[in-house]
Amino acid sequence: MKVDGKDMRPIWYDDALKTVQVIDQRFLPHEMVVMDLNTVDETIYAIKEMVVRGAPLIGATGAMGVYVSLVQPGNKKADNDYFITECNRLKDARPTAMNLVWGVDRVMKAVLVHDDYEMRVSAALKQALEVVEEEAVNCRKIGEYGMPLIEAVSKKKNGEPVNILTHCNAGWLACVEYGTATAPVYTAFDNGINVHVWVDETRPLNQGSRLTAWELGKHGVDHTVITDNAGGHIMQHGMVDLVIVGTDRTTRAGDVANKIGTYLKALAAKDNQIPFYVALPSSTFDWDITDGIADIPIEERDPDEIRYIQGRCNGKIEQVLVPPSDSRAANHAFDVTPSRLVTGFITERGICKAAEADIMALFPDKKRDK
Amino acid sequence: MKVDGKDMRPIWYDDALKTVQVIDQRFLPHEMVVMDLNTVDETIYAIKEMVVRGAPLIGATGAMGVYVSLVQPGNKKADNDYFITECNRLKDARPTAMNLVWGVDRVMKAVLVHDDYEMRVSAALKQALEVVEEEAVNCRKIGEYGMPLIEAVSKKKNGEPVNILTHCNAGWLACVEYGTATAPVYTAFDNGINVHVWVDETRPLNQGSRLTAWELGKHGVDHTVITDNAGGHIMQHGMVDLVIVGTDRTTRAGDVANKIGTYLKALAAKDNQIPFYVALPSSTFDWDITDGIADIPIEERDPDEIRYIQGRCNGKIEQVLVPPSDSRAANHAFDVTPSRLVTGFITERGICKAAEADIMALFPDKKRDK
Repeated sequence: MKVDGKDMRPIWYDDALKTVQVIDQRFLPHEMVVMDLNTVDETIYAIKEMVVRGAPLIGATGAMGVYVSLVQPGNKKADNDYFITECNRLKDARPTAMNLVWGVDRVMKAVLVHDDYEMRVSAALKQALEVVEEEAVNCRKIGEYGMPLIEAVSKKKNGEPVNILTHCNAGWLACVEYGTATAPVYTAFDNGINVHVWVDETRPLNQGSRLTAWELGKHGVDHTVITDNAGGHIMQHGMVDLVIVGTDRTTRAGDVANKIGTYLKALAAKDNQIPFYVALPSSTFDWDITDGIADIPIEERDPDEIRYIQGRCNGKIEQVLVPPSDSRAANHAFDVTPSRLVTGFITERGICKAAEADIMALFPDKKRDK
Repeated sequence: MKVDGKDMRPIWYDDALKTVQVIDQRFLPHEMVVMDLNTVDETIYAIKEMVVRGAPLIGATGAMGVYVSLVQPGNKKADNDYFITECNRLKDARPTAMNLVWGVDRVMKAVLVHDDYEMRVSAALKQALEVVEEEAVNCRKIGEYGMPLIEAVSKKKNGEPVNILTHCNAGWLACVEYGTATAPVYTAFDNGINVHVWVDETRPLNQGSRLTAWELGKHGVDHTVITDNAGGHIMQHGMVDLVIVGTDRTTRAGDVANKIGTYLKALAAKDNQIPFYVALPSSTFDWDITDGIADIPIEERDPDEIRYIQGRCNGKIEQVLVPPSDSRAANHAFDVTPSRLVTGFITERGICKAAEADIMALFPDKKRDK
C-alpha cells in the first residue's frame, strides 16, 4: 500500500541486502522504524514483542522465519533435528494466531523434500515469498468479495457515508496488502464509495488508534477514533451500518478468536440488528476444532502492557504509568465470539454464513478425517 | 474513608479557612492535590474539567456551589436575579448527571425562603452540608442493602473470593463516603467476606485504573485492573460472579445512563447469566422520564481526552499522544443500558427490580402527576 506515495509492505525480502525486513509497528504512528530479521531469535522476538502482529502477518513472518533458520549465523546446514527444532521454536512464539503454525508448516514441508542444503535454502525463500504473495492476493480477493456489502448500504443511503466499525488493526499492516477487515473498505473507497470508519482504539496496545487510524489516514479514508467503550452507544444511535473485524483463529464451526473486546462489539451489533462480518483468509481457519471458547488457546500477555501507555510526549516516544504502581493488572489478549453472533465470513473464496456446513461448502478441500 | 490512616472525603467545608475544598481527582493516583472553590466559575470549572466527578459528588458540589455563589467576591447579596442566574450556570456545568440539578435545586429552595442575605448564606451552607451528609448516609445504606448479594455468593463458593466487576469509579471519590457500586464491596470486605474486584480501566479518562484501583488499594481490597475490552472474556470463563456499577441518571422505568461502555458490560452479563446490579441513591433517579435512550442527554467531551493519555513518566505527570496527530476522535461520555439488561437497583431504601412499578413502589413519595 502507499505511504506518502511510496509502496510499502509490513514485511519484505531485500534482495540487495539478502535480508528479511519488517516495519517495527511498535513505534507507529509516530516513528517509522525498520527491523532486520537475521536470526530465529530475532524473528521470535519480533513476533512475541509485536514488532509484527496480525494473524496473516504473523503467518508470513513465521514462513520467512523458516528461511531465516537456514541462513542464520551458526546454522547447521541440512541437519534435520536442528531445522525442526528451530521451526518448532517459531511455531511457539505466540499461541493464538492459527496462521503461525500454518505458515511455518507450509515452508517446512517445501524444505523437507530436499536433502541438499542449497536446495533447501532456495526452496524456503521461494515458498516463504509465495506465502507472502498469496496472502496479498487473498486480501485483495477479500476486498473484492466484501465491497458489495458496503456498496449495498451506500445505495440504500443514497451515497451518504457508510459507517463501518472495526476493532484492532486488521489492515495491511496486519497482513501484507489491503488487510482483511479493511480490504472491503479500501476497495470500496478506491471505487468511489463514500465510507467512514469508526476506529476502536483497541486497548491495551492501541492497534486501532496507532495503526488502523494511521493506515486509513495515509490512504485518505475518513475515520474517527473512539474508545473501545463507545461502540454500543453509537450502534444504539444508528451511527454504525456494518461491523467488519479480522480474526486470529476461527474454528470450522465459525467461532471467532480475535483481539480482546471483539465479543462485546458482536453482542452490541446483535442487540442493534447491525451486520457483524469477520474477514479472513483460509489460513486463519483451524480446521481441527469446532468449539472456540473451549479449544482456542488465549494468550495472556505482560500486565505492564495495560499499566503503561505509550505515545508521543515533547517530541519523544514515552510511556506513562496510569494505575497505582502497586495495583495488579491482567492482560488477556483475545476473546472468542461465538458463531451465533457472526453474520458471515468474508474469505478469498467468497462470503459464507458462520456455520460449519456453509464454511465447509466453501472449502471442501479442507475437510479432514479425524 | 481512610487514606493512609487519615479520614478523607472528596469534598468538605474547611471551617477555619471558611472555604469549600475538593480533592483534584485529575492527578490521582500519582498526586494528591486539593483545590479551593471560591467562586462559581471555579466550581463550574471543577465540575466541567472533572476535578470532581461521579454523579453524587457532582450533586454535592453543585449544592456547595449555591453557597459559594452567595459568598464569592462581587456577589450581589440577596439579589434574586443574580442568585438564580448563578445557580442556573451551575446546573448547566454538565448535562448528564441528574444529581447536579437535584443538588442545586435543593439548596436554592432552602435559600429562597429567606429574604435576608445573612440568613440565606447560613441556610445555603446548612442545606449544602446536609446534602453532603445525606449522600454519605445513603451510600452507607446502599452498602448495607447490597452486602447480602455478595454474602450469598460467598456462601455458595464456600468462602472462595467473590469476583465483582465494576466500571468507572462509583467509589467514595464519586460520592462522599463508601461509594455507590463499591459500597456493598467495602461493607462486605469490612465484614470479613473474601472479595476481589475486576476494575475496568474505563477509557478515556481511566477513572477505573486511576481512581477505583487507588481507592480499593488504600482500603486493602484485592483488585485487578483490566482493559474495558476484557469483561466479556472473563465472564465467558466464569471469572465474574456479579457486576455492580453506578449511574449518572436512571429513568423511572429503569434505563441507566452511566459511563460509556457500561451497556457493553450489561450485554455480556446477560449473555453469560451474571447478575448486573446498579447502585444509586434516589437523587440519581430522573422521575420525569422513562425512555433513557431517547431522553437522557449524553455529553460529548473534548476528543483530546481520547487522543492524549495522562500518567506518570520519569516522576512527573505527563500526557502522551497516541493516534496520528491528524486523526479525528469522538468522545461520547455516557451510554444508556436498557432496563431489560439490569437485574436490579441497590438503593438507600433497599433493592428493587429494574421496572417502573418496582421502582415506584420503593419510592412512592416521588410520584409526579404529569
